[in-house]
Amino acid sequence: MSYPDKVYLNGQIVDSAEAKISVFNRGFIFGDGLYEVMVQINGIFFYEKEHLARLQSGLHKVNIDFDVAILNNEIPKLLHAAQLTDVDCMLYIQITRGVAPRQHSFPSNIKPTVMIYAVPKVLPEINLVNAHVIIRKDFRWSRCDIKMTSLLGNVMLNEEAMQHDCYETILHRNGVFTEASHSNLFFVKDGAVYTHPADEHILNGITRIVVIELCHLLGIKIIEKAIKVAEIDSIDEAFLTGTSTQIAAIQNIDDHQLYSGNKKGPITKRLQEAFLKLK
Amino acid sequence: MSYPDKVYLNGQIVDSAEAKISVFNRGFIFGDGLYEVMVQINGIFFYEKEHLARLQSGLHKVNIDFDVAILNNEIPKLLHAAQLTDVDCMLYIQITRGVAPRQHSFPSNIKPTVMIYAVPKVLPEINLVNAHVIIRKDFRWSRCDIKMTSLLGNVMLNEEAMQHDCYETILHRNGVFTEASHSNLFFVKDGAVYTHPADEHILNGITRIVVIELCHLLGIKIIEKAIKVAEIDSIDEAFLTGTSTQIAAIQNIDDHQLYSGNKKGPITKRLQEAFLKLK
Repeated sequence: MSYPDKVYLNGQIVDSAEAKISVFNRGFIFGDGLYEVMVQINGIFFYEKEHLARLQSGLHKVNIDFDVAILNNEIPKLLHAAQLTDVDCMLYIQITRGVAPRQHSFPSNIKPTVMIYAVPKVLPEINLVNAHVIIRKDFRWSRCDIKMTSLLGNVMLNEEAMQHDCYETILHRNGVFTEASHSNLFFVKDGAVYTHPADEHILNGITRIVVIELCHLLGIKIIEKAIKVAEIDSIDEAFLTGTSTQIAAIQNIDDHQLYSGNKKGPITKRLQEAFLKLK
Repeated sequence: MSYPDKVYLNGQIVDSAEAKISVFNRGFIFGDGLYEVMVQINGIFFYEKEHLARLQSGLHKVNIDFDVAILNNEIPKLLHAAQLTDVDCMLYIQITRGVAPRQHSFPSNIKPTVMIYAVPKVLPEINLVNAHVIIRKDFRWSRCDIKMTSLLGNVMLNEEAMQHDCYETILHRNGVFTEASHSNLFFVKDGAVYTHPADEHILNGITRIVVIELCHLLGIKIIEKAIKVAEIDSIDEAFLTGTSTQIAAIQNIDDHQLYSGNKKGPITKRLQEAFLKLK
């Protein structure tokens, strides 16, 4: 991982090393902010409208007064400065409530802090990983529908995967699988695709929504219902979705091997191929 | 609320307006940090050893490699620069994992960011508030024992109290009261004091520990057992504890009035008076 060349910060474009904020930024003091990640492929941000709409919806949920329409003008400026216009890249946007003396409740007349950067990133046509994942208890808050920067829980859970040389940590709460530390989770069972409903226990990922649409288009039965941890032995396939993950086949869940070699399940493969055609 | 004059940041003491960190600080990107608040009364930090021990314990839990013993030298430097040596004040300490390009898992060879500031604050001898509080669902994570800066949940819950002109929001999870948005919660019932056990659903506040000790000293029965929401009508007294809250009597919980006028419950009063003698 490396730093981007340029950072957009509150209307200014600066070198990464100069991109500094006050220690009284509520993003630093309270994790009081939201973020969004998009990828540019062949000069177009993949599902940009949906990403920005989700960001706007999240800002409403936490009462941060910021109009994402502003970003339509600002993102191209950053890309130009970073020499990434039309270049395949990953774009990161973070909006925090702004800067104020520390007190929990929302300060009045506060101006949000906007930070954007992009780094070159060419996604593979199809994610070729055969992921090994571990299972952990989902101890995060119960508003996972909000894509916030208060991410210590996700960070701790992701770190556990890294400690086990695994690709991701998949999570369970109340006896059912929810999602993963930074991606959504799907299962295939008896020819149908299952994923946790988009309630307050998961983030409704844009790639998750796309995969559900693809299932409809391909005539694959898709059921938004959580799979029980106790059902794990009856699972035929499993995969992760996310903006940079795209669709990643899961080979092993703890000691449960779903396939060997590169023999991904047929439905995972079909979805990966259909997803590729959208790009 | 106002900004402090001086901020200690990674060994340097700077004016508040100059206290800036990289946008790649994991405290800003991920809320990946811990904090501690202490008050200085008559030249002594109240239960300083316990506060710093809790901070050290939290740092171990989240694998941030920082020795809090360093703070014993650094806090006096900050106080001196801020002209607050021996002055009644509130001290805030924040340790984040440090600065690195964004990736969830813990970077190797990262140097923690240390930020400290103090603001003058004279606590009342006894907190005279007759608090009105609201009840909300505790939707925070299940590692509330970690005093982290990923606080958006606490912030949202505290804001609800402010919106209702209330002093605090008290929380329930799985049918029982846990704590409040930034303080601990006690009840009195049939002459005994009750508070939620110090498990992963509450922060084990230093003032909470002190109040439990005071109950033992005063011969008041203290039971670390959660009170059910359904038991609310059988509650005789209730109070909040915290570093700057000290002991705050609760007069109203939603529409439940526990007393009128200034007629605080006798056990709350006894504890407030005993607490005063510790200072």
